[in-house]
Amino acid sequence: MAESMRGLKRSHRCTEVSSTDIGSTVTVMGWVQRRRNLGSLIFIDLRDRSGLLQIVFDENSVGADGFAKAETLRSEYVIAVVGKIQKRSAAVNENLKTGDIEVIAESLRILSESDTPPFHIEENSQTKDEIRLKYRYLDLRRPDLQRNLMLRSKVAYLMRDFMAKEGFIEIETPVLTKSTPEGARDYLVPSRVHPGSFYALPQSPQLFKQLLMCSGYDRYFQITKCFRDEDLRADRQPEFTQADMELSFVDVDDVLDVNERLLKYVFKEAIGVDVQIPLPRMTWQDAMDRYGSDKPDTRFGMELHDVSDVVKKCGFGVFTGALENGGSVRGIAVPGKASMGRKQIDKLVDLAKTYGAKGLAYLCVNEDGTYKSSFAKFMTEEELAALVEATEGKPGDLLLFAADKNKVVWAVLGALRLHMAKELNLLDPNQYNFLWVTEFPLLEWSDEENRYMAMHHPFTMPMEEDWDKIDSDPGAVRAKAYDIVLNGTELGGGSVRIHQDDIQEKMFEVLGFTKERAWDQFGFLLSAFKYGVPPHAGLAYGLDRMVMHMVHADSIRDVIAFPKVKDASCLMTEAPGTVDEKQLEELGLAIKLPEETTEEE
Amino acid sequence: MAESMRGLKRSHRCTEVSSTDIGSTVTVMGWVQRRRNLGSLIFIDLRDRSGLLQIVFDENSVGADGFAKAETLRSEYVIAVVGKIQKRSAAVNENLKTGDIEVIAESLRILSESDTPPFHIEENSQTKDEIRLKYRYLDLRRPDLQRNLMLRSKVAYLMRDFMAKEGFIEIETPVLTKSTPEGARDYLVPSRVHPGSFYALPQSPQLFKQLLMCSGYDRYFQITKCFRDEDLRADRQPEFTQADMELSFVDVDDVLDVNERLLKYVFKEAIGVDVQIPLPRMTWQDAMDRYGSDKPDTRFGMELHDVSDVVKKCGFGVFTGALENGGSVRGIAVPGKASMGRKQIDKLVDLAKTYGAKGLAYLCVNEDGTYKSSFAKFMTEEELAALVEATEGKPGDLLLFAADKNKVVWAVLGALRLHMAKELNLLDPNQYNFLWVTEFPLLEWSDEENRYMAMHHPFTMPMEEDWDKIDSDPGAVRAKAYDIVLNGTELGGGSVRIHQDDIQEKMFEVLGFTKERAWDQFGFLLSAFKYGVPPHAGLAYGLDRMVMHMVHADSIRDVIAFPKVKDASCLMTEAPGTVDEKQLEELGLAIKLPEETTEEE
Repeated sequence: MAESMRGLKRSHRCTEVSSTDIGSTVTVMGWVQRRRNLGSLIFIDLRDRSGLLQIVFDENSVGADGFAKAETLRSEYVIAVVGKIQKRSAAVNENLKTGDIEVIAESLRILSESDTPPFHIEENSQTKDEIRLKYRYLDLRRPDLQRNLMLRSKVAYLMRDFMAKEGFIEIETPVLTKSTPEGARDYLVPSRVHPGSFYALPQSPQLFKQLLMCSGYDRYFQITKCFRDEDLRADRQPEFTQADMELSFVDVDDVLDVNERLLKYVFKEAIGVDVQIPLPRMTWQDAMDRYGSDKPDTRFGMELHDVSDVVKKCGFGVFTGALENGGSVRGIAVPGKASMGRKQIDKLVDLAKTYGAKGLAYLCVNEDGTYKSSFAKFMTEEELAALVEATEGKPGDLLLFAADKNKVVWAVLGALRLHMAKELNLLDPNQYNFLWVTEFPLLEWSDEENRYMAMHHPFTMPMEEDWDKIDSDPGAVRAKAYDIVLNGTELGGGSVRIHQDDIQEKMFEVLGFTKERAWDQFGFLLSAFKYGVPPHAGLAYGLDRMVMHMVHADSIRDVIAFPKVKDASCLMTEAPGTVDEKQLEELGLAIKLPEETTEEE
Repeated sequence: MAESMRGLKRSHRCTEVSSTDIGSTVTVMGWVQRRRNLGSLIFIDLRDRSGLLQIVFDENSVGADGFAKAETLRSEYVIAVVGKIQKRSAAVNENLKTGDIEVIAESLRILSESDTPPFHIEENSQTKDEIRLKYRYLDLRRPDLQRNLMLRSKVAYLMRDFMAKEGFIEIETPVLTKSTPEGARDYLVPSRVHPGSFYALPQSPQLFKQLLMCSGYDRYFQITKCFRDEDLRADRQPEFTQADMELSFVDVDDVLDVNERLLKYVFKEAIGVDVQIPLPRMTWQDAMDRYGSDKPDTRFGMELHDVSDVVKKCGFGVFTGALENGGSVRGIAVPGKASMGRKQIDKLVDLAKTYGAKGLAYLCVNEDGTYKSSFAKFMTEEELAALVEATEGKPGDLLLFAADKNKVVWAVLGALRLHMAKELNLLDPNQYNFLWVTEFPLLEWSDEENRYMAMHHPFTMPMEEDWDKIDSDPGAVRAKAYDIVLNGTELGGGSVRIHQDDIQEKMFEVLGFTKERAWDQFGFLLSAFKYGVPPHAGLAYGLDRMVMHMVHADSIRDVIAFPKVKDASCLMTEAPGTVDEKQLEELGLAIKLPEETTEEE
């Protein structure tokens, strides 16, 4: 039978008392972490979000009834205890903030009993994910998850605090909005008032924030949910949180500057990490050439080397063939892995193939200076030595080479570089390497669509110095786009937007949009652009991912209170679920499952 | 042709310069509010979100080319000007923050031209709502709307700031969640991965915030979007913003206390209003008896008086009949309206009828002390005098009486009271009368459903002192529920929740829920309740409405950036819209409009 807390008032959270309170009477409330009977005493670890506090029940203090009640306590009961703080009678527990004190109970109320939970509430639970997520309300009691969500709250607060002080206005944009045919798949919301019509949940507030710049709000900020109906991966959720901003009358440097100060403030205040600003910047081209990635992890070296010049006249057809096809040959030197066995190397080859490589060439620089290589027989000793030199290979290194189109070579070596770094334990989780990657290509050729596509979106501003190449060599035009990268993860990205009619029109032309199609898709933005647009630029962070990095979580689910699983369902609420026929009727909809369609046809 | 801002950097917003900057060179950017040619000079009012700044173009300073360019400027062009601050040459404009200075332009760039906008950008535009909302991006340039949205941003920031300092954690709850069969109509989101299944958009985070209390988060806060697919009224939007909180280990007083301090802080910092706390409290019963409303406007008196006792033996059948049917007779005294003409009184009768009255009795207390009354012939002079005394009527007052069931009497007189207050101009917009209304009835009888319904929701805690009446007189049981009322508007409300199994079970029984139905609807919450629930309570504010009050907006649309109109559509984006057949197929849906259904049947 649960008791009421009537007449009681909590005086402290569990760890808000300390040895300076010895002798004072407190009223504490929380969950029973565990109960131990020791001689004539009962010990309880009382838990709340602040931590643990030891409660002692002695029949002399709490009375016979109170003691009897204490004997019924089990894990996860919710209790209220009035008692005196005293120095701990037994040895001090150094692991606890309150390890040197305890409360000697004078009265006890059981506010709520508990069934035996399906798993014990403890840090770093080994319980299966399915069980944890079904009983998410219990899982969320775990101290590590509580720390994650408290930190997340703090990060959002710090961001808002900083942005407010910098003159940003938080403006809420609609959740029920219009479907945009490009981009990822929208979640749709049927309209009841207009049967047969649908709202879409926003994939980002992009168009709205640009409109707000047209409306003169100057500096916009919002932490908001975005939605993408994509096939889920481990690090994706159907709804995710974006920290989104847009600024008027600015260029690239202004955006980077305010964001560097934001990151410095947030990382310092949230997790005590000193971020040195200005942050390093690297062009997209350099990032690809040096790291084979547009989001390089710069916590370690093992950089890529272009050895095309060295091998262009060698006798190894794989290398020369790639060059003849307009590709390149590049390599990395993996320190201390010259002695890697054939089987292990084969695994690397398999990995390379998942990134599109046809194979992987290797060269071991033995400690004695001799070489062992998959392609030794095709090259002279001099050629091999030149190759080692070009790759900066040292005795003991394993050199790995990819030869293909640049895109494949980068992807393969970028992935191998990361793979080997993990194997060599080079990734220090307590090192925070931020990096701006800038000057992304404006366009990306799509073989599928047989046209250039906007790499970022059609409103991204080209770099002035490249604009004259837009007809002759569109692929060479760089954009005023930038990503912020942390330890090899893209934390966010953005761009300067086009505010000039003529450039925007040309962009649509290059992208193969008819005027009609452009207006059909972006009509209200293009219409707004007719009435005075300020130069503007913006950036958006993935908040979930940022917090995940801060707490070193393995899964994005560990920084979201009520996440969904891979099939986009919630194991706790069992959403999505069925609805009444009447509800569908009101929406002018009928269910028509694919199976039925097949049968009819 | 739009120019780039390359090489320029804005130094100030328009009103960030003042007479202390005279002589210094500034770079300002913004929109042309208007252009005037005066002799050999051109004057521009430059506008940004901070206000207006006068720019002067003199050919001697800006050069012939610059001057020629300035001559092309029209309203809403976006320009960048470099120039020197000087004392205003003409008379000081007292209405402008920068009214004593101007910028003498040295160079001009036109960053963006503008078509002639469909309406002039000005304060308190008289433009039709349809045009304003279609061109919302222009409407949002109006200084009054900009002030509203900037204030809204500030209010949200202040709330978060206060809540963070009070130990509340902001936790995001899901937007894609489960449909709840009770309450208002849900917006549904079809699932692609599970065709035929649907998510629902949350009507409030109620269940999630209670789960978070079960999970030990202690103090939860969130400013978040909620969704209701209801027929729209002027003050409703399909998506609206709630400032939502929940606290553990608390009772009514704790919730009221923290919210009083929150309101005091926010109203002071946002609009400079001093809120005296503790706020007055009134029970629901008193509010109904005295004001005929559960959200009384206490800025003026004109209170209701129960005259049942006075009239119970009179000869007026309308009065005695109402009493015999278990109702009451109540009246208000409208000051100075004794001379109201018959036609006007008839209008009041019509108004009364819209609130369910069969009629309205009146009595004019003439200045000479005589009476004129619709029911004089049924009463003695003494009875009339007693009635006037009971209503505290004074010479010159118009007394209005309603006789019916309490519910109708309250509704009628409550509405008349407000109506007359508006007519008498008693509503001072600069007076902020806050009021807690407490001790709401737990249950409300529904004739429609022929059962008691939860007035708040099924988890609302009954008052301990009434609980023994739950079987004998359920309607008399009061709840630990409270609303915060400002000037006759409900700003928010909440309750203490049930945390005891036995009370919860009984509640479901009284509400006519089978155990199966309760579990079907609230299963995951009831399941969570099995594992140790802390006593908890919460409250939620309608943020849109709060801001609306602060800025004295006539419409809720004036405090929302991109609102929808009555049919839940957005005139700017034209959402909702049609979608591809392919998208519906993926969702396992087909459109089946009501017309088609009718034809088939």
